[in-house]
This record gives sequence, structure tokens and C-alpha cells, in this order.
Amino acid sequence: MSTPIETPHPNPADLRLATVLAALADPARLSAVRALAAIGESPCTELQQAAGLTISRSTFSHHQRVLREAGVLKVRVDGARRMLSLRRDDLDAYFPGLLNAVLATAPERIGTR
Amino acid sequence: MSTPIETPHPNPADLRLATVLAALADPARLSAVRALAAIGESPCTELQQAAGLTISRSTFSHHQRVLREAGVLKVRVDGARRMLSLRRDDLDAYFPGLLNAVLATAPERIGTR
Repeated sequence: MSTPIETPHPNPADLRLATVLAALADPARLSAVRALAAIGESPCTELQQAAGLTISRSTFSHHQRVLREAGVLKVRVDGARRMLSLRRDDLDAYFPGLLNAVLATAPERIGTR
Repeated sequence: MSTPIETPHPNPADLRLATVLAALADPARLSAVRALAAIGESPCTELQQAAGLTISRSTFSHHQRVLREAGVLKVRVDGARRMLSLRRDDLDAYFPGLLNAVLATAPERIGTR
């Protein structure tokens, strides 16, 4: 009997703006979200590369968890791979315009001063 | 000779999305920003009342400082009063749609679960 990998996702009814903003309030996580919007559902390694994040696997895994627990992205287990995608419909339904604002910001305006 | 009250504000060129999101990522600060958008430039005490925040003066002062240092609001000293207002033009110029997304979110979706 195999044990399924635990990847809890909050229900749409439980998404909250303060939590989503806190999850997004990090340059590395903003880069990951913007890359994910650009390339669509992707395995972790591919997304990390697309986002240009030269960070450790465990740090990326932490960021992925923060975004998942806030309801920003979902994780689908596909064999040995974890496929990540944005919860675009939920975000647009409950926080209209928020994701678009994050995507519309100029790259040089994202990060730390 | 009087010493002016120190109220440093970041230049528009120094505003960053990650910093603004971090400042907004708190239910009390979100309530203050939404109330400020609704009532316009106001003294601290009036804003705190409009936002329905039953918190200490020092806690509100802390929230006000976080929002000011991120570039979300500005403080104008008017005699003994500190007048607060949103930096709406700067936010709209550099993070198009962000403030509107914050204002468009349903009240029950703001806070903690």
C-alpha cells in the first residue's frame, strides 16, 4: 500500500487576502509566480530555472510550500514529479485584479531596493 | 528653533512590489488602507476609527509607519496633527491595478481565516 504524498491545499472558501499578500511579498516567490504564469503548469526544477532562481532546492521547496498554503499555487503529483500551477481562477474570483497587478509590474520594480 | 518631526518617505523611484505587498499583508493595515481610500486624507485618530481598529495608539502608530516606509501612505504634519493619505498616484503608476485589487476584495475575504 502506497502512502500518498501530503500536499494539502486550502479550499477556495478559505483564501484570504492578507495571507495571499504575505505569500507574494518576497522577490523569489514573485519571480516564481510570474514565471509560472508565463510557462503554465511545470515541474519544480523547470519552474525554478524559468524564474532564474539560483537558490537551493530546499529553499525553493519552502517558497513553493508558502505559496501553496496561501492558495496561490497548486501541486499535482505526477509519478515522481510534482507539477506546479497557479490557482488563477480562484485568485481572480476572490481577489479580482491582484494577479494581473503582480504580472503587470515592471521587473525592476519587483525586488529589494 | 523647533525640530521638525521626522517623517521620511521613500522616493517614487525606490518603491518595490515585494515591500508594498509585505506592508499590505496584515488585516489591520489592509483595513486602514481601505478606510483611507474611502474617507481621503485624515488625522490618525479619525482614520483608526473609520477603519474600526480597536488597537492601542502605539500599535496603530507601528502600522502607520510600516505603510509609510513602504510608500503606501504619506504623512503630512499639520500643527499638532499628523494627516495621513494614500500615495495613490505612485502606487497606480508603478503597480497598476494593485490598489484597486485591494479595494475590490470583499470585506470577509480580507482577514484571518
